[in-house]
Amino acid sequence: MRPAQRSHHETLALRQQLIGSSCKLFFSHDPVKIVKAKGQYMYDENGRQYLDCINNVAHVGHCHPDVVKAAHEQNQLLNTNSRYLHDNLVDYAKRLSETLPEKLCTFYFLNSGSEANDLALRMARQYTKHEDVIVLDHAYHGHLTSLIDISPYKFQNLEGQKEWVHVAPVPDTYRGLYREDHEDSVTAYANEVENIIEQAHKKGRKIAAFFAESLPSVGGQIIPPAGYFQKVAEHVRKAGGVFIADEIQVGFGRVGKHFWAFQLQGEDFIPDIVTMGKPIGNGHPLACVATTKQIAEAFAATGVEYFNTFGGNPVSCAIGLAVLDVIEKEHLQAHATEVGNFLMKLFKELKTKHLIIGDVRGSGLFIGVDLIKDQAERTPATAEAEYLITRLKEEYILLSTDGPGRNVLKFKPPMCFNMEDAKLVVDTIDRLLTGTTDQKTVESDTGSLRCISFCTTGVMQSP
Amino acid sequence: MRPAQRSHHETLALRQQLIGSSCKLFFSHDPVKIVKAKGQYMYDENGRQYLDCINNVAHVGHCHPDVVKAAHEQNQLLNTNSRYLHDNLVDYAKRLSETLPEKLCTFYFLNSGSEANDLALRMARQYTKHEDVIVLDHAYHGHLTSLIDISPYKFQNLEGQKEWVHVAPVPDTYRGLYREDHEDSVTAYANEVENIIEQAHKKGRKIAAFFAESLPSVGGQIIPPAGYFQKVAEHVRKAGGVFIADEIQVGFGRVGKHFWAFQLQGEDFIPDIVTMGKPIGNGHPLACVATTKQIAEAFAATGVEYFNTFGGNPVSCAIGLAVLDVIEKEHLQAHATEVGNFLMKLFKELKTKHLIIGDVRGSGLFIGVDLIKDQAERTPATAEAEYLITRLKEEYILLSTDGPGRNVLKFKPPMCFNMEDAKLVVDTIDRLLTGTTDQKTVESDTGSLRCISFCTTGVMQSP
Repeated sequence: MRPAQRSHHETLALRQQLIGSSCKLFFSHDPVKIVKAKGQYMYDENGRQYLDCINNVAHVGHCHPDVVKAAHEQNQLLNTNSRYLHDNLVDYAKRLSETLPEKLCTFYFLNSGSEANDLALRMARQYTKHEDVIVLDHAYHGHLTSLIDISPYKFQNLEGQKEWVHVAPVPDTYRGLYREDHEDSVTAYANEVENIIEQAHKKGRKIAAFFAESLPSVGGQIIPPAGYFQKVAEHVRKAGGVFIADEIQVGFGRVGKHFWAFQLQGEDFIPDIVTMGKPIGNGHPLACVATTKQIAEAFAATGVEYFNTFGGNPVSCAIGLAVLDVIEKEHLQAHATEVGNFLMKLFKELKTKHLIIGDVRGSGLFIGVDLIKDQAERTPATAEAEYLITRLKEEYILLSTDGPGRNVLKFKPPMCFNMEDAKLVVDTIDRLLTGTTDQKTVESDTGSLRCISFCTTGVMQSP
Repeated sequence: MRPAQRSHHETLALRQQLIGSSCKLFFSHDPVKIVKAKGQYMYDENGRQYLDCINNVAHVGHCHPDVVKAAHEQNQLLNTNSRYLHDNLVDYAKRLSETLPEKLCTFYFLNSGSEANDLALRMARQYTKHEDVIVLDHAYHGHLTSLIDISPYKFQNLEGQKEWVHVAPVPDTYRGLYREDHEDSVTAYANEVENIIEQAHKKGRKIAAFFAESLPSVGGQIIPPAGYFQKVAEHVRKAGGVFIADEIQVGFGRVGKHFWAFQLQGEDFIPDIVTMGKPIGNGHPLACVATTKQIAEAFAATGVEYFNTFGGNPVSCAIGLAVLDVIEKEHLQAHATEVGNFLMKLFKELKTKHLIIGDVRGSGLFIGVDLIKDQAERTPATAEAEYLITRLKEEYILLSTDGPGRNVLKFKPPMCFNMEDAKLVVDTIDRLLTGTTDQKTVESDTGSLRCISFCTTGVMQSP
């Protein structure tokens, strides 16, 4: 019934004709057509192999055979809603519970991180009977109406900030309000939240939740200083609010040392609600909210049913279980630590050579390389980052940028990304920064090599 | 890694321990454990076969081999986001566009009907620059924060009606404000909407959208009189608003005569936005919004990207295409007309025998059987309906109720539901209504047989 494979030109033309133009393409001036993928590699219609440094959804590797097999076996047997008893649902909840602090023992399954964050918001409000939400600046929590409201990254371009939303500074010790030279950035950043709460209270407003990614991603691949969440949680809970950790981009072992990124803050920190998405199903639409008995009970006390048509169906749960199995079986957490450390080491070495590299930060395979125009002001090297990304694509390496300055190279590859891949990327970036024949370079005031001739193809941020 | 199949008791215990109690089970006092399904049949852990009269998600039949095959083939090849060009995305949009009026030519793919309705709402507001929404009473449009606000079925039990929401009476000519004896129920119901708009304007409010299921389902399996949508659309568009047809439960040929339920209103009616979900992927989390170029362009004009991580991935689109193929190949639309007409004919015959049957209405395999206590008042026979559903389950027939009175037996089976299935259900209901040894019956004032002894197990409405 379907036509044979369309030409690149034809696919693009049909896309422009039929798909809403709000849905953007990577490299919109010269988009890539991908027809196949395996592990950390993607292949275009001409069989060219691309190294994928950015797809954190294909968590255990594109088209992992164990995940594909689990989906197929369950698809042949049963795929129905969660109003019937099924082992996959409870087995999956049980397995997830084993990765979390004991307190987070009640689960809800959904189809996307956005659905999870929306539910978390509803729960926080139901439990606290408060309305207001504190978020971090530049945060992105999803595409739904309720989430655009709590996403400064989005609402700043739309109708603006709602009266029930409060924006706290990102605990970014490199480019933020309090930096690495501050004597106690943890307390200073947490005090900002305390101050927001006080101001809100003065206006008669009440805090339902502090809502943050455990590691702010769109915000610029930020690693909040350890202890920050504990102090924030103290302030927020004192105000009757809850702490929601958005693990949609950063959970499932990506940070290496821990299974969940919030655990980087220390063992004494436990969020009240955790949301999961993206990598959870290796591409299958799946998401989860985990919370405490108390919050779950308050949510149920309204008597209103929560029904999610596809959420928690046997196929989704089989896939979720298979992803957990692969992470364990292939020791992907340890692998992320090893490869991530190696990649950061290489970039830190490169930093001594190219002053455009201002900061290298990360944990496991969640890494940001912050490009700057000058050492003093740390001005984001936006155009240079864009140029680099575009040139890398020509070298068949898919990388992207993040941060309000769009100057942070973000690494969040499939977890099977290996040492050779790391070396290839860093070597290529070294070569591109060193200057090749097709770019003019100038000696900047601080001595760093900067690209002043760059393409302006539409590279965009991607959560 | 996983335990062997758990006992019914163990699965239930783990579910109660791990899954939020807001997520309800069918027949919660004696839930069914389903381990397998095929076509219109489901099987429990003891191999008992149930006839499924309610799962409108397993649209072309549970575990349809063509759909399973399409998923598996694509899962092995590639599953990534829609920021790369891919044929499945454009092929699928093209195929869907062929089922719709030409004007509805721009597509967005998502993971759930709720996501689709939320996007439709955002678009309507962006396009009209208005805020308010008119919905039908008892409507249910999804589980998200923004959708509970426009779902009287839900918000009546929660914090109540927002100032930007207006509730119009359901165009129900059997139990509604204007009935079959009204000389012009179409105009009368549409005038109610006109009146709401006038009242809103007096308060300085502006209408963004009229948002309705093409056939109100949770509202009680209602068939709005033909011509109603045209008149409503006229009023709403005059006020600068748009018409959103929610086809999540009722689209994809279910109504038999047409592919979309809004087409029952007549060829001269075209919504501005159509939302699709549930049956679209035969259980796979998939949804779609179709709209006009104008609305899509207004939505894009904000410059804010719309990115849905899983939406429109090659696997989801392959599955969506396979579902369309099966509907066509197996002539399921014609089949729905034939079997649906037969089922309604049988129920209409039964109506002459059992006065508890007040109304039989429907189109294709979307059918409601309205049970009443008395002919004069048409009082909903809520308890009787619940009893019937519970007894049917004991006869291995899965049926459910809908409507504010929970008295409407709703048929929305997989589209392969056949004549024998129809006969079996009606014969069984006949037998149960006629009275068996395990129920006491009384002659009601209007002569109908009513069950006065019934179980009170938790049967619930399900959208």
